[in-house]
Amino acid sequence: MIIAVLGGTGPEGSGLGLRWAAAGHQVIIGSRLAEKGAGIAEELKEAFPKGIFSGTDNLSAAAAADVSVLTVPYAAQEPTLAHIKEVLKGKILVTVVAPTRKPIARVWRLPSGLSAAEEAQLQLGEDVRVVAAFQNIGAHHLRDLDHQLDCDVLVCGDKIVDKQIALDLCTDAGLRGVNAGALQNASVVEGFTSLLVGINIRNKVKSAGIRITGI
Amino acid sequence: MIIAVLGGTGPEGSGLGLRWAAAGHQVIIGSRLAEKGAGIAEELKEAFPKGIFSGTDNLSAAAAADVSVLTVPYAAQEPTLAHIKEVLKGKILVTVVAPTRKPIARVWRLPSGLSAAEEAQLQLGEDVRVVAAFQNIGAHHLRDLDHQLDCDVLVCGDKIVDKQIALDLCTDAGLRGVNAGALQNASVVEGFTSLLVGINIRNKVKSAGIRITGI
Repeated sequence: MIIAVLGGTGPEGSGLGLRWAAAGHQVIIGSRLAEKGAGIAEELKEAFPKGIFSGTDNLSAAAAADVSVLTVPYAAQEPTLAHIKEVLKGKILVTVVAPTRKPIARVWRLPSGLSAAEEAQLQLGEDVRVVAAFQNIGAHHLRDLDHQLDCDVLVCGDKIVDKQIALDLCTDAGLRGVNAGALQNASVVEGFTSLLVGINIRNKVKSAGIRITGI
Repeated sequence: MIIAVLGGTGPEGSGLGLRWAAAGHQVIIGSRLAEKGAGIAEELKEAFPKGIFSGTDNLSAAAAADVSVLTVPYAAQEPTLAHIKEVLKGKILVTVVAPTRKPIARVWRLPSGLSAAEEAQLQLGEDVRVVAAFQNIGAHHLRDLDHQLDCDVLVCGDKIVDKQIALDLCTDAGLRGVNAGALQNASVVEGFTSLLVGINIRNKVKSAGIRITGI
């Protein structure tokens, strides 16, 4: 699969991109600036020479990809999606965005009352299938391919076929994905990121995560 | 400690009450009807004869207790609290309430935009210290004292001293409590209950739970 990691220059996007390339996918690192995307792609190529990486601007990356993964900060979500909306039509957008208010590690209720994922779905319309995933994983160990990540990924979306693609991407990144219901549930999963930020601070750790037990 | 389990005739309240009595606390089962509370208290006494149990109406239970634990369905929260508000003054209320909309296992956003725990705090005023806990544990194995529960309890509240009491109650129930931040975060924890309901259904299990990893 050709995967565009939009805003993929950050630690989470680049880490996921590295893991997906190691699983055999072709990875395009998208950035606001094409040269920044290309720079990270080169870095990842050094880390995993067998991988197929390229880097470009977000629009070109999304246009060339089968699946786009949105890893920009929340503040950049709306302008980024406005820019690439047309090329996403008929495709799946996996959004990793979790709004957190810094520096206070608590839940940030969006003015819309919706989750960032639902806002994305509303903005993009029915032609784009939005799935929320990877909100609760720390970026800390993603780039270390040998590191077994001790957390699950909750996947929210309105269609099971779309969620299955995200669930497969979890497996390919070395993570267990768990179907967590409708896209509406993304508000819980996004909010959980703030809880984990607080738990990290209180426990002086960097990678608190979540596991679903009993399944 | 004297613990009143309000609405303690249900599976979750009675199960927690049994475990707290086994840890040495004095447990009062509160119910809308005193005789129902007394009936469950007798049942628990049979299950754990060394325990100190009694049963009465919610108002008498809360008046006699050091700590009250609210385990009523969300629909009963407001009238129950209106009834017992005066006797809670100066004390701690641990709320287990998690609003879920049946039969659809998805997040129910309350009309207030708040969590049930925040609604309780608003209703009771500053004289009562509300802490949210035990939202995400299944009632299924609670009454089996030998069953090692494989899940954590997220504890939300605005004061660490109050949360510590709830964290100790987790330990006494055989569970690990994790400080999950301010009472505002209860919206996430309550919402998670709906996710777990859905995960239970999809995986044909009864006790999906949550563990925090990396701490």
